[in-house]
Amino acid sequence: MPITIDEMAAFCKRKGFVFRSSDIYGGFAGFWDFGPLGVELFNNIKQDFWKYFVHQKENMVGIEASIISHPRTWKASGHIASFADVAVVCKKCKKATKIDKSEVGNVKCDCGGEYEIKGEFNLLFKTKVGALDSEDAYLRGETAQGMFMDFKLVNETSRLKLPFGIAQIGRCFRNEIAPRDFLFRSREFNIGEFEFFIHPDEKKCSLLTKTHLSLKLKLLDAQTQEKGKDTLIETTIGKMLEAKKLEEWHAYWLAEQLLWFNSLGLTKIKVREHMKSELSHYSSATFDLDYEYPFGSKEVAGNANRGQYDLTQHIKESGQKMEVFDEETKKNVIPKVIEPTFGMERVFLAVLVEAYEYDKKRENIVLKLLPKLAPVKVAVFPLLSNKPEIVKKAREVFDALKTEFTSQLDISGSIGRRYARQDEIGTPYCITIDFDSLEKDDVTIRDRDSTDQKRIKIVKIAEILEKLLKGKTEFKDL
Amino acid sequence: MPITIDEMAAFCKRKGFVFRSSDIYGGFAGFWDFGPLGVELFNNIKQDFWKYFVHQKENMVGIEASIISHPRTWKASGHIASFADVAVVCKKCKKATKIDKSEVGNVKCDCGGEYEIKGEFNLLFKTKVGALDSEDAYLRGETAQGMFMDFKLVNETSRLKLPFGIAQIGRCFRNEIAPRDFLFRSREFNIGEFEFFIHPDEKKCSLLTKTHLSLKLKLLDAQTQEKGKDTLIETTIGKMLEAKKLEEWHAYWLAEQLLWFNSLGLTKIKVREHMKSELSHYSSATFDLDYEYPFGSKEVAGNANRGQYDLTQHIKESGQKMEVFDEETKKNVIPKVIEPTFGMERVFLAVLVEAYEYDKKRENIVLKLLPKLAPVKVAVFPLLSNKPEIVKKAREVFDALKTEFTSQLDISGSIGRRYARQDEIGTPYCITIDFDSLEKDDVTIRDRDSTDQKRIKIVKIAEILEKLLKGKTEFKDL
Repeated sequence: MPITIDEMAAFCKRKGFVFRSSDIYGGFAGFWDFGPLGVELFNNIKQDFWKYFVHQKENMVGIEASIISHPRTWKASGHIASFADVAVVCKKCKKATKIDKSEVGNVKCDCGGEYEIKGEFNLLFKTKVGALDSEDAYLRGETAQGMFMDFKLVNETSRLKLPFGIAQIGRCFRNEIAPRDFLFRSREFNIGEFEFFIHPDEKKCSLLTKTHLSLKLKLLDAQTQEKGKDTLIETTIGKMLEAKKLEEWHAYWLAEQLLWFNSLGLTKIKVREHMKSELSHYSSATFDLDYEYPFGSKEVAGNANRGQYDLTQHIKESGQKMEVFDEETKKNVIPKVIEPTFGMERVFLAVLVEAYEYDKKRENIVLKLLPKLAPVKVAVFPLLSNKPEIVKKAREVFDALKTEFTSQLDISGSIGRRYARQDEIGTPYCITIDFDSLEKDDVTIRDRDSTDQKRIKIVKIAEILEKLLKGKTEFKDL
Repeated sequence: MPITIDEMAAFCKRKGFVFRSSDIYGGFAGFWDFGPLGVELFNNIKQDFWKYFVHQKENMVGIEASIISHPRTWKASGHIASFADVAVVCKKCKKATKIDKSEVGNVKCDCGGEYEIKGEFNLLFKTKVGALDSEDAYLRGETAQGMFMDFKLVNETSRLKLPFGIAQIGRCFRNEIAPRDFLFRSREFNIGEFEFFIHPDEKKCSLLTKTHLSLKLKLLDAQTQEKGKDTLIETTIGKMLEAKKLEEWHAYWLAEQLLWFNSLGLTKIKVREHMKSELSHYSSATFDLDYEYPFGSKEVAGNANRGQYDLTQHIKESGQKMEVFDEETKKNVIPKVIEPTFGMERVFLAVLVEAYEYDKKRENIVLKLLPKLAPVKVAVFPLLSNKPEIVKKAREVFDALKTEFTSQLDISGSIGRRYARQDEIGTPYCITIDFDSLEKDDVTIRDRDSTDQKRIKIVKIAEILEKLLKGKTEFKDL
């Protein structure tokens, strides 16, 4: 039986991954807190994103913009005019939800009831800034505008040439009419995304070499859907490229997104092109990357071709020049933009869903997180908690390890119980100190997934863990 | 001539550390964006905080709570009733500012003008949540309430025993009447803080051993001020402890805060006890840790003894039990709380002020950041940019390094110009590939602070950098 989303939420609460915000006040719909293990897993995912898309790319830099910015930002971006949902309530079951403007009159509730229309609501949260001369301002509904507004400053101060990208991870706020599905649709969440700026005439992506693409196509094959006349047809990125239905840079970043997911251990991903009616106001072509969640195949990431829309809008609204000088043609140009974007809580949720496994033999949950993502890397146990010399030795080992790895020292309960606790939270390695350790200065190291155990020297633990965690050695080869 | 705060802001803009938010719209007072180098430096500081106070402490866990929480949070915390400033405008020079309630009638503007009182303004930003049945909600003015509200859930799910701490780094918002001094007083900023929960009867801090304290006292000596009857008197933490004017756990965390600042290379720190009139509504004793900024000695961090105030308030408001079972006395107790807190942008600013140095000999700025904090760890240069085989080799070295270290490849300009650019942004090491590199597979590595250069083998670069960056070897010993 696969886990339901409610069971996942209960598991996350029980183990300290995620709590309802303001739980003591009955929660606050659409808001969540990351608990002690959740914040570690979430930080690991965010840092892995940053390493993959910023540090390891030559033509990418990061920024961190403010959540509240000048109100003209949202006028220019089109969000004040277009970022609205239609709120409806089912006349039969009374459930509130939102529908797309294009769906008004065409759709019914799941229970069969007709919808009563409650009005159109902008998703941006509004506030007032300044005590004396206060003005309306908005909490950002996406991080992208930060990159567009800072585009010129970043370009000039970082000495970048087209094509280049600006990345950001940050909190966003949307006043969702009906938050639901645990972390999936909430009112406060993190987006990780980047705007990739390209010369408007550039058709070729120099990075999309044949080898590179064929590697990516292995992942992409048979998991892509292209919009046909009325329906979606099965295809591959490669075929869309051949038929020139997709720009090369767009294909390149789609493929990179899939590669990152692959590096997180996510397998249940599908690519789906947006139908015309689904396209945002700023996009000429958009792909969703959907993950097979317990409640259906839903968007975990997207990739929109925003063209010159945003820069042009900000040029109009601000009257500023936001062009880049092209050395070849000696002309100023407004770049076009590809935007790969990730719902970071949705990635977090996908990682948990993928890792969650009930092990029948162990009669316990084993959270098979990749070691690089696991909130706790290593747990240290004294075999017997009533033997001071063993506890002392265990503490010494723990104290040495915790300067390098997130570690736990667990002294209470049987060893089996302690292994089980660590399996549930995905700790890849456990180290046990026993009587032999006192004489021989060695310990038992146990692998979460195989439950295999090996004996290693205390002085070697840090070096071996480092190699195991970086994938430079395998447990069976110890 | 020491740098002024305006010069620092200009430097930060010029090198891509910090921009005004919404710069193309003339900025938005009190809001700032971190640029490409700023976000790296800021992340390094935040990660160092997390490593020091969470990962390396046995009795500390982290959380990440939502920015918007249930409105009763702020009723319970006292912020709706008490978190207000008095806005005033100088009748003479027309400058708007805020004053403390206790100062009304007693203070004048710096220009000598009298103040006109404009009213009392709550610092919490307000918004409305929900489209159909919307209710008032607030952007958090501090992260602390997240820890108090999640206290029971964290305690139960993480199997913690008193004393233990819950840490968080996160964005906060305060509708400041007069934002000023660059990043120092803004309307959106990050707090890094933790609540440390202690048995209400506990007087001793088991961690505050004599050796530990004497180490800390070296840092604390002659830099502490205690409130006397009307004025502050010079003292030390040690003397305050002896005279029982300070709780041991309070002293312990004050000392740990100073040790962390020391590990960031900050020297110009002073500790100052709050006068009674300065105390927040929740605190019985508070210390400021002040840094010597260009605009004066101002608070970079604080440490408040919040006692049982917050938990008691939330118990009253929510009707929930928020006690911990004490195994010794077999009774439920409400812990008391020590709260060490850091303005993370203020730490960022202090780190930059401390590192900024004009080198007369080089006729250039050298940003003497600790290697662990530097936004770019290593820069790679081909000696000649018009020799393809040298550029190719440089790219190979760069490609190998960038998987492990934040790196830059710089091909343009003279080597001297390239060194100068890296000195300005604090890059600790530069690597140059020349003709000899092609034959001997070695490179020149150059140290930012001494400008010394050594010759090392290409295969050894990663290993040597790792040791240099972790402080395990010194450049002069290469």
